[in-house]
Amino acid sequence: MWLRASCLLKFEIEIPTPFILMLRPKSGAQQWVARDEFNVKPAIPVEEFTDDYGNICQRLIAPPGNFEIKTTTTVKTAEFVNVEPYAPFVEIQHLPHYTLSYLLPSRYCESDRFSELARFITADQVPGYNQVAAIEAWLRDTISYIPGSSDYPISAIEVNYKQSGVCRDLAHLGIALCRSLSIPARMVVGYLYELEPMDMHAWFEAYVGGRWYTFDATQSKPKGGYVAIGYGHDAADVAIYNQFGPSVIPTVQKIKVKQIKKDL
Amino acid sequence: MWLRASCLLKFEIEIPTPFILMLRPKSGAQQWVARDEFNVKPAIPVEEFTDDYGNICQRLIAPPGNFEIKTTTTVKTAEFVNVEPYAPFVEIQHLPHYTLSYLLPSRYCESDRFSELARFITADQVPGYNQVAAIEAWLRDTISYIPGSSDYPISAIEVNYKQSGVCRDLAHLGIALCRSLSIPARMVVGYLYELEPMDMHAWFEAYVGGRWYTFDATQSKPKGGYVAIGYGHDAADVAIYNQFGPSVIPTVQKIKVKQIKKDL
Amino acid sequence: MWLRASCLLKFEIEIPTPFILMLRPKSGAQQWVARDEFNVKPAIPVEEFTDDYGNICQRLIAPPGNFEIKTTTTVKTAEFVNVEPYAPFVEIQHLPHYTLSYLLPSRYCESDRFSELARFITADQVPGYNQVAAIEAWLRDTISYIPGSSDYPISAIEVNYKQSGVCRDLAHLGIALCRSLSIPARMVVGYLYELEPMDMHAWFEAYVGGRWYTFDATQSKPKGGYVAIGYGHDAADVAIYNQFGPSVIPTVQKIKVKQIKKDL
Amino acid sequence: MWLRASCLLKFEIEIPTPFILMLRPKSGAQQWVARDEFNVKPAIPVEEFTDDYGNICQRLIAPPGNFEIKTTTTVKTAEFVNVEPYAPFVEIQHLPHYTLSYLLPSRYCESDRFSELARFITADQVPGYNQVAAIEAWLRDTISYIPGSSDYPISAIEVNYKQSGVCRDLAHLGIALCRSLSIPARMVVGYLYELEPMDMHAWFEAYVGGRWYTFDATQSKPKGGYVAIGYGHDAADVAIYNQFGPSVIPTVQKIKVKQIKKDL
Repeated sequence: MWLRASCLLKFEIEIPTPFILMLRPKSGAQQWVARDEFNVKPAIPVEEFTDDYGNICQRLIAPPGNFEIKTTTTVKTAEFVNVEPYAPFVEIQHLPHYTLSYLLPSRYCESDRFSELARFITADQVPGYNQVAAIEAWLRDTISYIPGSSDYPISAIEVNYKQSGVCRDLAHLGIALCRSLSIPARMVVGYLYELEPMDMHAWFEAYVGGRWYTFDATQSKPKGGYVAIGYGHDAADVAIYNQFGPSVIPTVQKIKVKQIKKDL
Repeated sequence: MWLRASCLLKFEIEIPTPFILMLRPKSGAQQWVARDEFNVKPAIPVEEFTDDYGNICQRLIAPPGNFEIKTTTTVKTAEFVNVEPYAPFVEIQHLPHYTLSYLLPSRYCESDRFSELARFITADQVPGYNQVAAIEAWLRDTISYIPGSSDYPISAIEVNYKQSGVCRDLAHLGIALCRSLSIPARMVVGYLYELEPMDMHAWFEAYVGGRWYTFDATQSKPKGGYVAIGYGHDAADVAIYNQFGPSVIPTVQKIKVKQIKKDL
Repeated sequence: MWLRASCLLKFEIEIPTPFILMLRPKSGAQQWVARDEFNVKPAIPVEEFTDDYGNICQRLIAPPGNFEIKTTTTVKTAEFVNVEPYAPFVEIQHLPHYTLSYLLPSRYCESDRFSELARFITADQVPGYNQVAAIEAWLRDTISYIPGSSDYPISAIEVNYKQSGVCRDLAHLGIALCRSLSIPARMVVGYLYELEPMDMHAWFEAYVGGRWYTFDATQSKPKGGYVAIGYGHDAADVAIYNQFGPSVIPTVQKIKVKQIKKDL
Repeated sequence: MWLRASCLLKFEIEIPTPFILMLRPKSGAQQWVARDEFNVKPAIPVEEFTDDYGNICQRLIAPPGNFEIKTTTTVKTAEFVNVEPYAPFVEIQHLPHYTLSYLLPSRYCESDRFSELARFITADQVPGYNQVAAIEAWLRDTISYIPGSSDYPISAIEVNYKQSGVCRDLAHLGIALCRSLSIPARMVVGYLYELEPMDMHAWFEAYVGGRWYTFDATQSKPKGGYVAIGYGHDAADVAIYNQFGPSVIPTVQKIKVKQIKKDL
């Protein structure tokens, strides 16, 4: 499935403002980026680097006045995400090194406080994929998904208390629950084809059966069309933009994702 | 200053228990490890790897029965930590890439909630080293340092509420305050010569004037004799041991640090 | 200076043939990639990875029949390369770690055999930039640059014996000479605006005065318009394609580089 | 099998001389370093870093006069290296990324010039382990192993011409032959228990059947007791010391490897 996705951000900047952006998807096991475009207006200098987790980041100082960032990407991604009931739990001693830090609590995923709830939710499940699927189903049934309802990240504890949230909030709670069962789980931000209403999206991946699987409690059933932009422990690692100094809210944030025919 | 430091941990294990350890210091800008020893008893297999932040970690499965880990290290470290009043604040656009993630909130350092307090504490300070020194002094005056008073990590918000804590807690609050001023700050765990009572120690580093400086609110004045074992965003990244499964508390945790004469 | 550069490669493949490609430029200190496109025809799976030196590489198995790779990139690069006479030689003890391996001999740059010649060429020069500039001038005067004259890489010793070569050959000899003076030097492949005749290009960088500087003995004077695609010790590290199995020569290899106006 | 290995190097230094050393083994899949000691006399500053291939390196400036380096290590290593006849050749498309650069020619392993010889040597062999074993046997039968016969590295072409060499030379030729068959091969330097006469040693590893296997044409049959210190493409990557400036030969180079009993 070929997708063309774009993101347009407009800001009104008062004083020179440093930004760190994460808006450039990378080819990987699950997607191939055939084309990628990243423009800023005015055309100020942009510096690119790779963070500790392999995400491509950009730094710039937005100048006072109207400032615009526009990115477009053409990506081949799976028609349907892989679903693998009974993919087994991986004993900690057999986990690859690079998954281990995804077992630990992080800023918005206080997994050290969710053992009991996780055990309750997954009571009768075979360890592994089925536990994560039970967590995903529980989130879908229990936490009301209200797109656009949150201004800043809240943590899994707060989400569980509120019983509602945006995509990011559901992912945080899902991650915290997985980790409390010793299942590595990580946050993904990116695009999702046919998301309603269209916006940046967040979901999570859990490591079972020897690989990462996609889970998304905001959707009623597994689908495809995911384009990953950034991976991290939680929203603190994968903000699509961090700006420093007086808070600046985009005046426009417009995401488009459409399917295209692609044969060179 | 040459130090010999050792750590002895004893456990009574009921069922095979996976551990991830961080007990091997590494040579770096501020210390040279001339000798290092790491033993487990019984002599089960240990696997070593380097985490995302460059720390050396070990994995093993502790077998049922008495289990013992003993590490010893001989390190050359500074007689006095560097102190540099007026070392300037580094504008975000000039920070090296590898410091940027230390500006963001993390599990135990909710820097996104401390702007006001940080501004209050550092009101009259020149931006940079002096701000951090003011934070360190405020912690020393405000938060009672009570060694051994905490069983598990609490977050900066909780520490500030409680107004007391162990070394780790003071470091968490210090880090959160620095980050809220856009000063990169990170947690360090390791040994400290002449710490009273002797134990594993935690302190923090802040990036000002183009390098990392050591700060430690548990000590009445800057001293030397620090041996770093692990660096991270907060205690979640740098636990000297993480064990998985039913909680296991060491029956013995004995740290020794003594000065030695060293000439080959 | 904004450039649009493209590379078209066509092959007639007899049996399924593995390729490793290096055709995707990366944003860096000296260039900003605003747009990048990479297509293969037929649209077979491509896997992307980053090599030990930070270059973006692609792997694929070309199927029998006509096979085509087309890449296009839009890059902002310097109007003129930096020139810095008297930039000082960096003593080995002050070189950053990441430059050290560029002091050592490599497959096509036998720097361990060029001390005498290097000392002769740079006899009266101030150590540093001026030595490298003398090497560049010597190459220009001594080794005939004959574009298209070589089918496969030959080594610095062979180039010096032959006294002529393609861009890659001049770079190899330049690198070997620099390293024999303890100046780190590395190979770069990429595009050069207004190269005559247009083709993929190779040049070298030397580390003096605390940074990498561009040198290119194939051009009569320093110019700009360089787009780097890959960095390595020599041509063995930075082939734009390696294929395995029976040798396959492209039936078409067409490079275009044109200047564009760019304002979003 | 527990080994204690030590290396003593003595130099008479005339002018301050930069050294890069690689003398500190690292725990890995095949060995566990329980204790490690690294001393220099006089006790000048040493800086440690990790190179592109994961080896631990040290930098220092040796002062004029007598200068001594002494390292000792206690390592658990295999009693016998793994031998796996018929372990299959791995098709290039299935090789892990990190093995790919070990397919390419390097300074002392001109694999681009050995196709015919390699095909001749391995004519009737099943692709994979058996090809490498045939190469190892051919080296043993054809190239006279003469410890101590070479002052500086020569390349595979030169070794093949000379028909004799030190351990490093046999490894270079073995590596070049493997790579010309599209089998990744790398150089290892380190200690070997019961090597006669005792000295630093070099051997090679080839990637077949999904992992690296040890090969050593200097020994009449596979044994154990290998302690790896450094890995690289060839001797250019893994010199136990590189010194810069006027050549300095150690006045003493003494290696000891003995078996020890180890139970904490």
